[in-house]
Amino acid sequence: MKVLLAGDFDPGEDEVWRRALAAALPEAHWCSRAELDAGQVAAGEIVAAVVANPPPGSLRGLPRLALIQSLWAGVDRLLADPTLPAGVPLARMVDPAMTAAMAETALWAVLSLHRGFFAYQQRQREGVWRQHAQRRADEVPVAVLGQGEMGRAVAARLAALGYPVQGWRRDGTPLHDVLARAGIVVNLLPLTPATRGLLDARAFAAMPAKASLVNLGRGAQVVDADLLAALDSGHLRHAVLDVFTTEPLPAGHPYWTHPRVTMLPHAAAATDPRSAAAVAAANLRAARDGGPLAHLVERQRGY
Amino acid sequence: MKVLLAGDFDPGEDEVWRRALAAALPEAHWCSRAELDAGQVAAGEIVAAVVANPPPGSLRGLPRLALIQSLWAGVDRLLADPTLPAGVPLARMVDPAMTAAMAETALWAVLSLHRGFFAYQQRQREGVWRQHAQRRADEVPVAVLGQGEMGRAVAARLAALGYPVQGWRRDGTPLHDVLARAGIVVNLLPLTPATRGLLDARAFAAMPAKASLVNLGRGAQVVDADLLAALDSGHLRHAVLDVFTTEPLPAGHPYWTHPRVTMLPHAAAATDPRSAAAVAAANLRAARDGGPLAHLVERQRGY
Repeated sequence: MKVLLAGDFDPGEDEVWRRALAAALPEAHWCSRAELDAGQVAAGEIVAAVVANPPPGSLRGLPRLALIQSLWAGVDRLLADPTLPAGVPLARMVDPAMTAAMAETALWAVLSLHRGFFAYQQRQREGVWRQHAQRRADEVPVAVLGQGEMGRAVAARLAALGYPVQGWRRDGTPLHDVLARAGIVVNLLPLTPATRGLLDARAFAAMPAKASLVNLGRGAQVVDADLLAALDSGHLRHAVLDVFTTEPLPAGHPYWTHPRVTMLPHAAAATDPRSAAAVAAANLRAARDGGPLAHLVERQRGY
Repeated sequence: MKVLLAGDFDPGEDEVWRRALAAALPEAHWCSRAELDAGQVAAGEIVAAVVANPPPGSLRGLPRLALIQSLWAGVDRLLADPTLPAGVPLARMVDPAMTAAMAETALWAVLSLHRGFFAYQQRQREGVWRQHAQRRADEVPVAVLGQGEMGRAVAARLAALGYPVQGWRRDGTPLHDVLARAGIVVNLLPLTPATRGLLDARAFAAMPAKASLVNLGRGAQVVDADLLAALDSGHLRHAVLDVFTTEPLPAGHPYWTHPRVTMLPHAAAATDPRSAAAVAAANLRAARDGGPLAHLVERQRGY
């Protein structure tokens, strides 16, 4: 089977993926858009595409395409490409190593906020030796927005440490009711028209005073001006942000230097080629053999 | 029963403890060393003492003393008092809330080191957006020095997240064999003559290059000059230090500003009066009723 590999890879990253995929699916012939465009491979022979936010148009003109398998969990950028072939099954990546990494980052952020470790690091820089009061985990309710693979894994890890965890999905309890009971809000929602701008001034006002936000979903779900206002007024205590409306976050953006913001460079959880290649290979084999496809995206819903 | 409450408390802290202890053991009459010295309570009536690093001499002249119950887990300062009555049973505090807090801090430190979150916070301060490679937890072996209540709780939490954990106790495998296999070393040993200065240049040399140290035990177990040398040479990547040879850490000490050191002000885990008062009360009742005493210190051993 001939498979197109296309993505917005860092230098060398495509080679890592190509090797991992070749090892997981040795019967496949892997080719690039450049080989296709140069006529070295016929477009009509391509039966599947493995993609990582490929440049728009990368999947055009492939008449026998039977599966588009994303290497990333988030497909919002992919769905925004108007040339994405309609009617071809599209699968998200659900990589166990990525899920574990996301749970680690969420745990680190919640522990840091609950136990005041960001504040202690600030005191170290100021040369101040002073303890603050210690709360038990069961006194720090956490809301986890999003109840997919990652949301459920994060909620389970937090609950195992004793945090009272309330999960939220878009078709459940009203969001603001959940926010009102949360000392820490962890966002893991997919970006869709329904979640864009969801975390706005009204959402922050619904959160209790001194609550904190951990955004591991998508930057466009947060109204940045509203978050900055809530932090500046002291209503929110702290924000841990991994994702941003524009990435990389532009130089000079207030988040870089805000004392109540801890930033990660979209590094909360990366897909791990070693495990993800096997997940992709299983779906590609299913597509070839007519078996059931896993982790299909509902394009109308957006994830 | 008349019980002496004596400690080196912060302002107001003794009142918190007195209230929690009174609620847990309403039949006791609590008194202070000042009341004793003023003759308001007869020394011969005191049958037990609840202590939190009391000033040396606080327990002198109490002929009917049947139990010394520490509110703190570490008793090294208490044992260093030459006037501590010999032959009186001495119990450490084993507080479930403190054990949980210690596990939280260890988890936060290990996650921070494993996932490079300290490095990301440094990049935020420098305005640099750059991801680094992501390792799985099973690629980061952790050694936990000390296998008491806290060491075992920390090891269990880390193992549940997928870290390969090796516990070390002083009578087991040679220390340097355990250190040689550790990407991260978490120290939770009690301070005794045998553990003083245990983490020295030879111990750091035994650790693999780029390993890190988390010291949640006692400052005097680390030879500070040796640790600074190992960090400065780049052999060790980072140290998370909660405890210090002198506390508070003196102004101007190199740890305050060392780029490879993250400091806490002896705040990794505090005893929680709400749960610890019940633990102390159970032991005091056992002392009164002749029942078995829990968490007794072997003075020769030092913990």
